[in-house]
Amino acid sequence: MDLDFIKKLIKKNDTKIVMIVMDGIGGLPREEDGLTELETADTPNLDSLAAKGVCGLQQPVASGITPGSGPGHLALFGYDPVKYQVGRGVLSALGIGFDLKPEDVAARGNFCTIDENGVVVDRRAGRIPTEKNIELCNMLKGIELPGVDVFVETVKEHRFLLVLRGSGLSGDLIDTDPQRVGEKPLQPRGLSSEAGKTVELVRRFIDEARTLLRNQHPANMILFRGFSKKPCWPSMTEVFGLNCAAIAAYPMYRGLSRLLGMHVLETGQAIKEEFDTLEDNWDKFDFFFLHVKKTDSYGEDGDFVRKVKVIEEVDREIPRLLGLKPDVIIVTGDHSTPSALKFHSWHPVPVLLWSKYCRADNVKQFGERACISGGLGPRIPAVDIMPIVLANAKRLEKYGA
Amino acid sequence: MDLDFIKKLIKKNDTKIVMIVMDGIGGLPREEDGLTELETADTPNLDSLAAKGVCGLQQPVASGITPGSGPGHLALFGYDPVKYQVGRGVLSALGIGFDLKPEDVAARGNFCTIDENGVVVDRRAGRIPTEKNIELCNMLKGIELPGVDVFVETVKEHRFLLVLRGSGLSGDLIDTDPQRVGEKPLQPRGLSSEAGKTVELVRRFIDEARTLLRNQHPANMILFRGFSKKPCWPSMTEVFGLNCAAIAAYPMYRGLSRLLGMHVLETGQAIKEEFDTLEDNWDKFDFFFLHVKKTDSYGEDGDFVRKVKVIEEVDREIPRLLGLKPDVIIVTGDHSTPSALKFHSWHPVPVLLWSKYCRADNVKQFGERACISGGLGPRIPAVDIMPIVLANAKRLEKYGA
Repeated sequence: MDLDFIKKLIKKNDTKIVMIVMDGIGGLPREEDGLTELETADTPNLDSLAAKGVCGLQQPVASGITPGSGPGHLALFGYDPVKYQVGRGVLSALGIGFDLKPEDVAARGNFCTIDENGVVVDRRAGRIPTEKNIELCNMLKGIELPGVDVFVETVKEHRFLLVLRGSGLSGDLIDTDPQRVGEKPLQPRGLSSEAGKTVELVRRFIDEARTLLRNQHPANMILFRGFSKKPCWPSMTEVFGLNCAAIAAYPMYRGLSRLLGMHVLETGQAIKEEFDTLEDNWDKFDFFFLHVKKTDSYGEDGDFVRKVKVIEEVDREIPRLLGLKPDVIIVTGDHSTPSALKFHSWHPVPVLLWSKYCRADNVKQFGERACISGGLGPRIPAVDIMPIVLANAKRLEKYGA
Repeated sequence: MDLDFIKKLIKKNDTKIVMIVMDGIGGLPREEDGLTELETADTPNLDSLAAKGVCGLQQPVASGITPGSGPGHLALFGYDPVKYQVGRGVLSALGIGFDLKPEDVAARGNFCTIDENGVVVDRRAGRIPTEKNIELCNMLKGIELPGVDVFVETVKEHRFLLVLRGSGLSGDLIDTDPQRVGEKPLQPRGLSSEAGKTVELVRRFIDEARTLLRNQHPANMILFRGFSKKPCWPSMTEVFGLNCAAIAAYPMYRGLSRLLGMHVLETGQAIKEEFDTLEDNWDKFDFFFLHVKKTDSYGEDGDFVRKVKVIEEVDREIPRLLGLKPDVIIVTGDHSTPSALKFHSWHPVPVLLWSKYCRADNVKQFGERACISGGLGPRIPAVDIMPIVLANAKRLEKYGA
């Protein structure tokens, strides 16, 4: 739904909304008993909430489309992820709290391994430890480019951030990451005529980096993805009139929240600690986004059992959440990450919405198959969720006379 | 979904997809036991596939819209049938296997009956027998027009095809069929300035035809509909990266497939023979469209029992299909043709999708009512099916970081 349309209907209220995003929550059945991770998990509190709430399955982007975490979250926050696109470089910058200026160009860097012919043999340089990354970034920080400031920042393991600051820069560059081993890194190339200057600077940076890293092993080269500038989007406060807080342990989600004008709260990494943060800040905000990362991490590891445990851990915090007496609760994910696939997937994501006024359906269990017959339907577009949330929070005016 | 959006996400894979289209598969319950044709049919193999797959009901065009076979198939192949329109003239040409060139203009003709005042009294000339049509077309073949080649081809009963071949022709003409009796045929008229030459040629053709047919009865005049040129659409290979084959016994479906760049395979007419063709060509293609016509034909005849038999015939071939070990199977129709209506209808069409990664729902039977509670939902747009198929075939990249 168009944000301008919603914006005109917003009215003030003092209701409180909590959106719990279990990253990659959706799954696929395992062979032994035909149950998914969520169906396997013992979730008495979520099931009880599902029974009182309205359920369904949501599609972050569109039918058949496997979303990255950026699009998946943007859609949940009501921003059409096809219209609101954010580059990987910007996401990396926001993720480590790098204060990106409007004119900056950011790129996500990977340390990689090349052989004597310059061919990429490991796109992640064996996932070098973060300490090694810091050491290598310190070397790259020595690179100077004419007319721009250069920032090289460690993200984690093999991942780093490059930011060029100066005037006349463009994010319209192809990735130099060939996306597969057995090929050489691609030469920087512009996608528009404005990118010429940036292409030349990036080329120089890569050349110097190659020289500096040539005796390192395994991280003897770099690859770039997602050259981009910080987008200028309306904040969730501007659009929805909500004072929003993000409780997220991982940099990427903190950065994304900041992009939408959320206040990013300091929090411990554990799920229990995230709920502590929720309690501690309960009086200060209207909308809380609470992000749980490990469902996705274990999904990507193919670890069915640990993914189940994380879901159960979240379930145990639900009574504390209810104790705060929120007006609207949403529990869902930004995409599915079935352990069976070890990767994000296109499968619709279970969603549960509860409020005093939600009109409960017949779903009694928070699981993929149970949610098919829920009141939200088996493939509601994720961007439709925020309007329903706002309606349940009595924060939307009637449309038309 | 926009084809350009999908195209950017396509990745190569060697997975194989089979789409079985039982034309007009959807039906309505008969009085004696309240079951539809599909619900009545004994389909152990399709039911077993439904139990392991994900089901639903799809809408080829939109809610309440009864699709022709053209739009119905285009939607299944992922082409929005409202955006990708093909004229009736072109469809008629495709239907009789006429080899239309890019510059040709085709129109669907009807022999009709006019009274002494030139007023149409029967738009179909009493549905004259095809033999008579051939005789009349032979007369019209004598008409010569300056600077263009003229083709007049019998279709069936009162229907024929007119093709003008030459440079500078346009399909932008109104129909001359007034769509009701009691009115005179409309004068040819252009809808754009480029149509002038074509209008003049069509006017001359009609004048000469009126003279040639004036002593015939009841077919003493002609009406034209759907002037059109062959559209220039991106092929399924360009958009989806699929090497596609069509197995269809009827000319119209072969022509439509050709329009999308499919390889049209030689095949016998019987369902068993179509599956023979599938087996024989298994190694050569990624995507197979297998078309079954008789479900629709018997639906249009109002022959409930024979329609049931055709469905059962398809069901018996499913084990052979499974023996080929396809990666993705879709079974559906291009629209519903309930025997009770003897015509295409607007009712959503049962659809079954199976792959190793499809996330099975609770549907255990391939039937209209069972599919309502399927994971694909009770009215998924047909154009959404191809993206889901591609996802299940692991032929789509993740969208966004």
